[in-house]
Amino acid sequence: MEIITGGITSAKGFKATGAHIGIKKEKKDLAIISSDLPAVYAGTFTKNVVKAECVVWDQARFNADDQIYGIVINSGNANACTGEQGKLDNITMAQTLAKHLNCSKEQILTASTGVIGLPLNMKTVQSGIEETVIKLGDSYQDGQLAAEAIMTTDTFMKEIAVNIQIDGRQVTIGGMSKGSGMIHPNMATMLCFITTDITISKEMLQKATSEIVDDTFNMISVDGDTSTNDMVMVLANGASGAVIQSHDDYKTFYHGLNVVMQYLAEKIVQDGEGVTKVVEVQIKGAKDKDDAKLMAKSIIGSNLFKTAMFGSDANWGRILCAMGYSGANFNHETVSVKYISDVGELLVLKEGTPIKFDEEYALSVLSERDIIVAVELQEGTGQATAWGCDLSYEYVRINGEYRS
Amino acid sequence: MEIITGGITSAKGFKATGAHIGIKKEKKDLAIISSDLPAVYAGTFTKNVVKAECVVWDQARFNADDQIYGIVINSGNANACTGEQGKLDNITMAQTLAKHLNCSKEQILTASTGVIGLPLNMKTVQSGIEETVIKLGDSYQDGQLAAEAIMTTDTFMKEIAVNIQIDGRQVTIGGMSKGSGMIHPNMATMLCFITTDITISKEMLQKATSEIVDDTFNMISVDGDTSTNDMVMVLANGASGAVIQSHDDYKTFYHGLNVVMQYLAEKIVQDGEGVTKVVEVQIKGAKDKDDAKLMAKSIIGSNLFKTAMFGSDANWGRILCAMGYSGANFNHETVSVKYISDVGELLVLKEGTPIKFDEEYALSVLSERDIIVAVELQEGTGQATAWGCDLSYEYVRINGEYRS
Repeated sequence: MEIITGGITSAKGFKATGAHIGIKKEKKDLAIISSDLPAVYAGTFTKNVVKAECVVWDQARFNADDQIYGIVINSGNANACTGEQGKLDNITMAQTLAKHLNCSKEQILTASTGVIGLPLNMKTVQSGIEETVIKLGDSYQDGQLAAEAIMTTDTFMKEIAVNIQIDGRQVTIGGMSKGSGMIHPNMATMLCFITTDITISKEMLQKATSEIVDDTFNMISVDGDTSTNDMVMVLANGASGAVIQSHDDYKTFYHGLNVVMQYLAEKIVQDGEGVTKVVEVQIKGAKDKDDAKLMAKSIIGSNLFKTAMFGSDANWGRILCAMGYSGANFNHETVSVKYISDVGELLVLKEGTPIKFDEEYALSVLSERDIIVAVELQEGTGQATAWGCDLSYEYVRINGEYRS
Repeated sequence: MEIITGGITSAKGFKATGAHIGIKKEKKDLAIISSDLPAVYAGTFTKNVVKAECVVWDQARFNADDQIYGIVINSGNANACTGEQGKLDNITMAQTLAKHLNCSKEQILTASTGVIGLPLNMKTVQSGIEETVIKLGDSYQDGQLAAEAIMTTDTFMKEIAVNIQIDGRQVTIGGMSKGSGMIHPNMATMLCFITTDITISKEMLQKATSEIVDDTFNMISVDGDTSTNDMVMVLANGASGAVIQSHDDYKTFYHGLNVVMQYLAEKIVQDGEGVTKVVEVQIKGAKDKDDAKLMAKSIIGSNLFKTAMFGSDANWGRILCAMGYSGANFNHETVSVKYISDVGELLVLKEGTPIKFDEEYALSVLSERDIIVAVELQEGTGQATAWGCDLSYEYVRINGEYRS
């Protein structure tokens, strides 16, 4: 496997573009992806019972086994809680792109992100799609236009592509994501689009997608909210000529997809609103993987832990506390906790016994931007990793001002 | 029922006091409560699997049906995650007070609040208890000393007392609480002590306590963390001579206890760390009470909702979103949402349809300190109320600096 410079257009037979059409004041707000060949499609969606129109539409496409020729994505408006008109507007978005790609509207996926409860200006959206679709291209730069257009409060584009060898041929997996606020396990306001030129069954693609999303996107948290619009989509169009024929082929593909998803998930955390620290929580020795996940997610989701990180404070009591209310079962008298950064390691709790440490050294370890919190229990072999960030003044400022 | 000026010493036969003994640098850090008569005791405790030593001790007292003569409370140190020594130190605290109250150590309850994982300085604590116990008194001022001594980052004392008439006699219920950071449903770092001079069975007292805690203390949230030390304790010593003999007596007592607990719970929210807004979320028309509670708690627990409140932003999308991932089931197309403050009402969503509103008026409604969010669904008759606060710069500052 090789990581290459690339993104959503790196896999063969995929085109993309992005533009400013007037939903936002100045920034790009429309992205289009197209596939030359009909693509198999897998996805995971928000578990929020309030679902944006695009989520409802895309789930129906999945259930109907529709093959996909394109995706139209707008940023700046979530088209959620917009009633009957929102439903129609979403269909119009699909229809407008379908006309230009010579397919049916059921072969188009939609995605939206932004403010909830405001109707879309459909004159703007329709003419915007029509003017943008003619710019579709398959260069890296075309993909970057799309990656830029899906951003909301993101401060940088998130893209990656990898090459793998399957069936004697080169297969490419590439993708882009957007995140920033509201990122939390169970797919919170984040969009991720992945394209690959392998031939794979829908069932197999969905299995890999669901499992990897669970270990990556569902293990990150910026602020604990789960949005109405979150989705991860993977399109596979077979343009490479390579077909998955053995378990080894599947494993190779799975690994490549995992690298792409984990990278795009971690970038979302690194670009969280107001983030000054990126934290990786590693749990080892839990009863099982589920318990390990519960504890890891509980720690990165704790406001008290997050503010302690912001203050570079080795307050491990808040870590134990968050583990304690996670729902996982463990004996706290055998837990060890360690902080790790580029400066070095800091052991603060060894098998339940607090270790005296030098406050100055602790501060230097925790003043780094990247911090690992390594927790070791003695309950079993369950392990999990979660990625999160601190809670800063800047987070409060950005989200206190978002809509108005 | 009559609300009177009073607190933990208002009920007959209870004494209290508080002092600075040296756990904290300057502020009061030890409180003692005593009962002249053996008291029946009910309580609810943190559900965190990491429990402080005082929680383990008090639960054992409850299980053993011990009658109680006193409570010793220290602030500044949680005595949690302190290993075998912490267990012994907790027993020493009980023993020291028991010696002076002429009872067994099993007739003493303990409570601690503060930093996790630091051993107590027992020389300080033991001599502190010995010097403080001799000051026990039953005046209102004595109770205030105790109410002050249990504070940590609290900015004001929280006390209340009520008189009710039962069995032709006057019965008093009084109490004190402390809260501030980490307050969340399921009893997060908060302590509440209530005394009453009624005669009531342990079972009946526990039933009332559990039910009312569920509707009050478990419906407040400051930051979503659940601590290792939370507890609500109620002592009933029978000194008034009144005995609960009928269902009406029980109802009268229940109502009085509810007023005391709801007041002490709301005061905790009003004193949340860095709070600039106090928010009451009212859910009506949910499928049932459980669903109503899920939604109310999810809204007040959402960082995005809380930052919107801090910014006086009528971003009702975040309310719908939090309801959507609460676990409750509902049709979002029939939901209505209204903000209410002293300035007036602001309807933003009517049966699923967004209502256009004047931004200036919205800002004036939401710029008040006390905000009610009234949500109406059309699923059934379930209703619930939760109390919370905004998330401010100040919260981040206080918690980023707490330990160091």
